[in-house]
Amino acid sequence: MTVTAPQGFRAAGITAGLKASGNPDLALVVNDGPEFSAAAVFTSNRVVGAPVMWSRQAVKDGAARAVVLNSGGANVCTGPGGFQDAHATAEKVADELGIGAIDVLVASTGLIGVRLAADKLLAGVPVAVGALAADDAAGTAAATAIMTTDTVAKTAVRTVETPSGTFTVGGMAKGAGMLAPALATMLCVVTTDAVVPAADADAALRAATRVTFDRVDSDGAMSTSDTVVLMASGASGVTPDLAALTEAVTEICADLARQLIADAEGASHDIAITVTNATTEDAALAVARAVSRSNLVKAAVFGNDPNWGRILSQVGTVPEDVAPFDPAELDVSVNGVMVCQAGGAHEDPEKVDMAASRDVTFTIDLHAGDAEITLWTNDLTHDYVHENSAYSS
Amino acid sequence: MTVTAPQGFRAAGITAGLKASGNPDLALVVNDGPEFSAAAVFTSNRVVGAPVMWSRQAVKDGAARAVVLNSGGANVCTGPGGFQDAHATAEKVADELGIGAIDVLVASTGLIGVRLAADKLLAGVPVAVGALAADDAAGTAAATAIMTTDTVAKTAVRTVETPSGTFTVGGMAKGAGMLAPALATMLCVVTTDAVVPAADADAALRAATRVTFDRVDSDGAMSTSDTVVLMASGASGVTPDLAALTEAVTEICADLARQLIADAEGASHDIAITVTNATTEDAALAVARAVSRSNLVKAAVFGNDPNWGRILSQVGTVPEDVAPFDPAELDVSVNGVMVCQAGGAHEDPEKVDMAASRDVTFTIDLHAGDAEITLWTNDLTHDYVHENSAYSS
Repeated sequence: MTVTAPQGFRAAGITAGLKASGNPDLALVVNDGPEFSAAAVFTSNRVVGAPVMWSRQAVKDGAARAVVLNSGGANVCTGPGGFQDAHATAEKVADELGIGAIDVLVASTGLIGVRLAADKLLAGVPVAVGALAADDAAGTAAATAIMTTDTVAKTAVRTVETPSGTFTVGGMAKGAGMLAPALATMLCVVTTDAVVPAADADAALRAATRVTFDRVDSDGAMSTSDTVVLMASGASGVTPDLAALTEAVTEICADLARQLIADAEGASHDIAITVTNATTEDAALAVARAVSRSNLVKAAVFGNDPNWGRILSQVGTVPEDVAPFDPAELDVSVNGVMVCQAGGAHEDPEKVDMAASRDVTFTIDLHAGDAEITLWTNDLTHDYVHENSAYSS
Repeated sequence: MTVTAPQGFRAAGITAGLKASGNPDLALVVNDGPEFSAAAVFTSNRVVGAPVMWSRQAVKDGAARAVVLNSGGANVCTGPGGFQDAHATAEKVADELGIGAIDVLVASTGLIGVRLAADKLLAGVPVAVGALAADDAAGTAAATAIMTTDTVAKTAVRTVETPSGTFTVGGMAKGAGMLAPALATMLCVVTTDAVVPAADADAALRAATRVTFDRVDSDGAMSTSDTVVLMASGASGVTPDLAALTEAVTEICADLARQLIADAEGASHDIAITVTNATTEDAALAVARAVSRSNLVKAAVFGNDPNWGRILSQVGTVPEDVAPFDPAELDVSVNGVMVCQAGGAHEDPEKVDMAASRDVTFTIDLHAGDAEITLWTNDLTHDYVHENSAYSS
């Protein structure tokens, strides 16, 4: 079950011919209402794709009736012509659906710097509209059509009971393991049949992404195209309070974020970095992010080596005004074994078994406050180097 | 020729037995005067080794008579016992040389979190003192004894003519290709026979490291032990002005920095990232550093792929208040071929030949000002992953 699980949504995934592989490459998600609240969160990169430029403007009124997504080309660094391609795609979808182009969001993923085959894309739109359906198969087809180096389609659904009735949230995402990959862009569409004012949609989506996608950092590379969209149809007639909505949207985003990590390019280990007893959440996040971006730490995990010295040296790179702590008080546990206590060696690293499972946990205790966060990353492997040295050549 | 090239210096490199390989692991550089000016620059990591703690204090008076350096153990995260080991090493060198321990700097490199074999280290000190000599062979022996994953010893010498006479600057360094590696720590000793007040030594060394070692960023990992020491014997009787001294020290540091990059762990390409027409040097450096830390960019270079989209997406991650520029005006050249002009595709990437040479150049024109810098990094290779996943296991 996926974006079509909530009432009021149809989806499609078809092959427009943008990918050399001949795999599906064009997805469409349509909100049939009765309401059309929408919100979106985009990459913070200053270099952004034409679809991001278009969609940022299109979602400003808090409404959207459709999202059209393609793989096989990111439409980034493609100049005024590229923006015209994104605009023409929205116009074509709008024409076919009998709605306004300003209610159509566009998202693209693939290689940067290459114009899309706009004729194929535009010709695919009527095919996608013709394939629209509200069933599981259609939702899965859409999730499949946005895949690039992903090995599996990523979907999630939650049904939430409230005193006034039941509402459903569904979602799909693509991205080979990173929040912010430069090429394997993260795209995500979340749908709900709850009745949601646009302001609540925006608040719930921002709260959800802050603690989910923003806490996945596979390789530190920020995309030019990352897009997360929430659309609410109101078809269930149920109006949840903001807290219930936020919780449900956060669960969907967390589920999808974990699926991204689990399918990360070339990864052999998922690493959950938990930082405890920080002065603030931001301090904890800064420490976790410093560790997650160390190639030396990540290569050590690939080698099943609980190398706490590399972890500590990354923790030490965080400026004191960002994360106050005393280096002489740091504890580090790997898979639950406290290999470093008070800044020095403690339990024998030989006690840590990293080969047994894909999952690895680091727990870093700063002994400075009571804030805690968890950030997800992956190890650095030969396959990562191989995939990313061969991608466009 | 190396640290013994300037008059007034002796050096030694011997095997104390700290390394399992049985390779040389203990180096000593002694300034015989008549002057003893010294300055040092250390890692900015908050987690630092015991030798850095000791040496920071010992150099505060602007004088040093000896530097003792060991490979085979970093003496980091080793608690009060580790600090005692560093102190005892300085005391032992001082005793053997008949000087004060406060005039002995200590530097160590190797694995973090493991106590040194202090008995072997201390027993090695008299052997090193006995081997001290002012000839080339002794200088080379010292440069060899500080190697870890380095494949070659790194040395440099410059002789400078001034109106009042000739002075010489010599240097040695170790570090497998990174400014700030977590394990393959950078250590560097620069010697000169010029007459140099301590304040000038400090000013010259800081100016030199800022534009040399600080502009090498092989893998973004900041060491807990990085140490660069300058000692001046005054034995030439020549007193250069600060500008001439700074220029000579900068040349030595630049030469050694390039040798570090050329010997980077697992690298197959050296990448010179030049950022031009930035508003300030700091803005240019921020852009270059963002590019140098992208695994996607570095893996593309390993694949001989001039992937300018990955470069542009990294440039776009730099906040506008750090580096003002218009993304629509960015030009990118790889090996002199302008593959991206005004933020879009330009020359055919097929025209770029990256396979022909180890050296690769990126030129990123921000069209925002007139500041320019060059930062050095390496590609990301299978060998890097292999070396760093197998290091301690």
